[in-house]
Amino acid sequence: MVPYYPREVDCWGVFEYSCNGPTENNPFIEQWLKAEFSCGRETICADGFYDGDGLYRIRFMPSSEGVYQFHITASFPLENMDGTFTVGAPKAGQHGPVRVADTWRLVYEDGSPYLCLGTTCYVWALQSDELVTETLKTLSQNAFTKIRFCIFPKHYAYNLHEPYSYPFVGTPMDSSVLTDQNFDAYNEHSAGNNWDFTRFNPAHFQRLERCIEALGKLGIEADLILFHPYDRWGFSCMPQEADLRYLRYVIARFSAYHNVWWSLANEYDLMKHKTLADWEKIAQVLCENDPYSHLRSIHNCFHFYDYSRPWVTHCSIQRNDLYKSAELTNQWAVHYRKPVVLDEIAYEGNIQYGWGNLTGEEMTRRFWEGALRGGYPGHGETFLHPSGILWWSHGGTLHGESPERIRFLAEILREVPEGLQPNPEASWDEVAAVSPAGTQYLYYYSFMRPGFRDFHMKGRYAVTVYDTWNRTKEDIGMYSDSFRIQLPGKPYIAIRLQKQ
Amino acid sequence: MVPYYPREVDCWGVFEYSCNGPTENNPFIEQWLKAEFSCGRETICADGFYDGDGLYRIRFMPSSEGVYQFHITASFPLENMDGTFTVGAPKAGQHGPVRVADTWRLVYEDGSPYLCLGTTCYVWALQSDELVTETLKTLSQNAFTKIRFCIFPKHYAYNLHEPYSYPFVGTPMDSSVLTDQNFDAYNEHSAGNNWDFTRFNPAHFQRLERCIEALGKLGIEADLILFHPYDRWGFSCMPQEADLRYLRYVIARFSAYHNVWWSLANEYDLMKHKTLADWEKIAQVLCENDPYSHLRSIHNCFHFYDYSRPWVTHCSIQRNDLYKSAELTNQWAVHYRKPVVLDEIAYEGNIQYGWGNLTGEEMTRRFWEGALRGGYPGHGETFLHPSGILWWSHGGTLHGESPERIRFLAEILREVPEGLQPNPEASWDEVAAVSPAGTQYLYYYSFMRPGFRDFHMKGRYAVTVYDTWNRTKEDIGMYSDSFRIQLPGKPYIAIRLQKQ
Repeated sequence: MVPYYPREVDCWGVFEYSCNGPTENNPFIEQWLKAEFSCGRETICADGFYDGDGLYRIRFMPSSEGVYQFHITASFPLENMDGTFTVGAPKAGQHGPVRVADTWRLVYEDGSPYLCLGTTCYVWALQSDELVTETLKTLSQNAFTKIRFCIFPKHYAYNLHEPYSYPFVGTPMDSSVLTDQNFDAYNEHSAGNNWDFTRFNPAHFQRLERCIEALGKLGIEADLILFHPYDRWGFSCMPQEADLRYLRYVIARFSAYHNVWWSLANEYDLMKHKTLADWEKIAQVLCENDPYSHLRSIHNCFHFYDYSRPWVTHCSIQRNDLYKSAELTNQWAVHYRKPVVLDEIAYEGNIQYGWGNLTGEEMTRRFWEGALRGGYPGHGETFLHPSGILWWSHGGTLHGESPERIRFLAEILREVPEGLQPNPEASWDEVAAVSPAGTQYLYYYSFMRPGFRDFHMKGRYAVTVYDTWNRTKEDIGMYSDSFRIQLPGKPYIAIRLQKQ
Repeated sequence: MVPYYPREVDCWGVFEYSCNGPTENNPFIEQWLKAEFSCGRETICADGFYDGDGLYRIRFMPSSEGVYQFHITASFPLENMDGTFTVGAPKAGQHGPVRVADTWRLVYEDGSPYLCLGTTCYVWALQSDELVTETLKTLSQNAFTKIRFCIFPKHYAYNLHEPYSYPFVGTPMDSSVLTDQNFDAYNEHSAGNNWDFTRFNPAHFQRLERCIEALGKLGIEADLILFHPYDRWGFSCMPQEADLRYLRYVIARFSAYHNVWWSLANEYDLMKHKTLADWEKIAQVLCENDPYSHLRSIHNCFHFYDYSRPWVTHCSIQRNDLYKSAELTNQWAVHYRKPVVLDEIAYEGNIQYGWGNLTGEEMTRRFWEGALRGGYPGHGETFLHPSGILWWSHGGTLHGESPERIRFLAEILREVPEGLQPNPEASWDEVAAVSPAGTQYLYYYSFMRPGFRDFHMKGRYAVTVYDTWNRTKEDIGMYSDSFRIQLPGKPYIAIRLQKQ
């Protein structure tokens, strides 16, 4: 095949150069290719990768309109090592990668607001085609703008069946021996696995790419989890050389997708084969090889990583207290001076584990707490299901009561495009946020149910009362300076004041 | 009047010696009397007090059956300075004062179990006769076994009217100027008060005594608050001499009632006119003058007192976090190694303040958390009321949904007369208590809603599942060793395992 590449691409779209190359021996470790892309004063170097069947590819995400030149180098002879292509205006709805604006704000690269409301489906991309399609349909009908998921398959309760594919060439242990009583006895050292960590399985990564692309079309960020501890195959204890080879392969394949975020780990502190030095090395390689500086973080089980490390762009927090989670958002943000993304505040559901049996009310309450405290809450769902399909791992459809309330919250938050931060004048018994210019105020009373509240403001405000559970909104008129707002005396009430 | 005293009294009842004495000048500061009571090897000295109208009294609570002798001394001449009386068996239901058995347990002096489930009605005793009667009726119909209330009247929102009486002779400021908008501007320094701190108003204390007695008959402990900051009369900033005179007068009058507890203050840390040295002096005088060593503590607003002080018998805690209160009970108990009495974990109601607008569900949840974590939760209620009668201050009737659930909890706890302490083998996602001998286990799932739970026990257990909100109890049979309990997947479920 003569190398192929498109002559036109949209800004923040994926430019892909494809060519044939050697197939003998092990191209994954014996061959390489890379390209330098330049436009104006910008020059970016991107690694290519072997995609199997003799096909090699280089991907690139242009970030400005104009004519780009590229120059390829490779470990094997190539035709057409130089070329140009034109980058046009971004597609409608395409705003580029998400960036950190400040402690309280995530924005798209073009400056437009990004409202981060996440969900988690750890291995949705490794389920059947039907289930993947169903998950995407569910996502298209909900307010979530980010989804966390793993590149590696997952071994855990409710996660005993075989994934759609494996990342490496080889064969897995026999999963037919697993039951929900004995699964805990199987781990990364279990016998019966036979993997070649030097040979990737391109089909596995192609599937993930189709998912990342589909998410991009829905305006949803793909928060990719690089490593995790729930393992019966040995992927959590590969030699460092294999870890870093895998990492570079993943970066070469995925980083040109504008909607990729990097999560070094789910629950890094449960991964007993990796030291802090290992994580820092992974972060270093990631920083050196991702040409686009996608958002980077690492997620804890018990102990937070040191989010003040320079490579960490935002806090990716799993709550580590049974009772207080989103309630601590503003404290964490002030401490780390980075956006707080609440990547696990427990899940709505009814399974046996305390992290997976919240009511819809409590999940929704945590979303409001997190959002009005200047952070970005994340959802998940774990209902007992006759076929064992739990959103939290497999995707599918949603059964809970929080998603439609999260949509309602999203509608309200989108009316404050400049974003919210904690109101420093909040009383101890309210959750209070204010827009940066001080023109919009939101108050939330959580599980409390005041019959009225007194306000002492300056100026004139249009007042709206929300029942965040029943999704009602009432504009109750104009109020000035010191005033009393009568409230229904129910939990989950919010008030908005808009300065006139 | 020839001195009068009864020749027979019940154990832990009140023996009262009455006589006439001087009325000229100021008997409260110029006269004194006291008595030494002895029986066997026990000798106790009790101060008497002037009760107005030329009447002097000495009260004494005997704590063993037998013949007691007494000898009176006084600042004035007396007939019959010596006498004897017989102490008979305690009345049915009379178990003596409450004592601390260990970190986790309060018991009556006779060793029988005392289940502490408190409520708060700060100035119920200073309301109209009708309201006091109504409060006692309400208490008789509920499960509360302790009530916190003040000796001094209270000035605060919903507490602007005149109390039934004042502790001192004098005249108060004009309360007709007060509104719920301006009350905050009036405080202990407000003009218009004219009090003689050297002259007590016996009627005020007699009323409190009638209330303490009535509580005693209902089996309810009277947790008397000696000082508090909510003041428009100057009672919170008297000279130390007046504080201590008042304290000795209160001890002389009230300490012979078996059901008295001493709370040095409500929210001591808001009383800006008193230093830690003042509180320690008050504690010292209390310890020296209370012959019966009734339970003693001091209650905070923001900052806990140092409950490790030797004079403190138990922690009297107001929660100082909006979200976590009873959830911390076991941590506090382990830290202070004294029983934890949760004297304010916010109130069920719908007023504007965050401490006074919990749902019944949340109040009940906090009771279960506190009780199963080895402590003693306290209730309160603050519903907006057309006549401004809020249980929290005035008593009256109850309007909330938690009291009947607290009764349900009390029934379950009374089936574990040996008491509960935290189960050290509790999982992070359950609240688990165990009886000292390890024969009864209680598990509570709080706001979580597991569809089932797995247990790994040794032996055979009778299993009961409770819906703590709907007050249902289901004995589901016998289970042995490792077993799974199916649950309804609703919040507020508890399980009891009784070893067979």
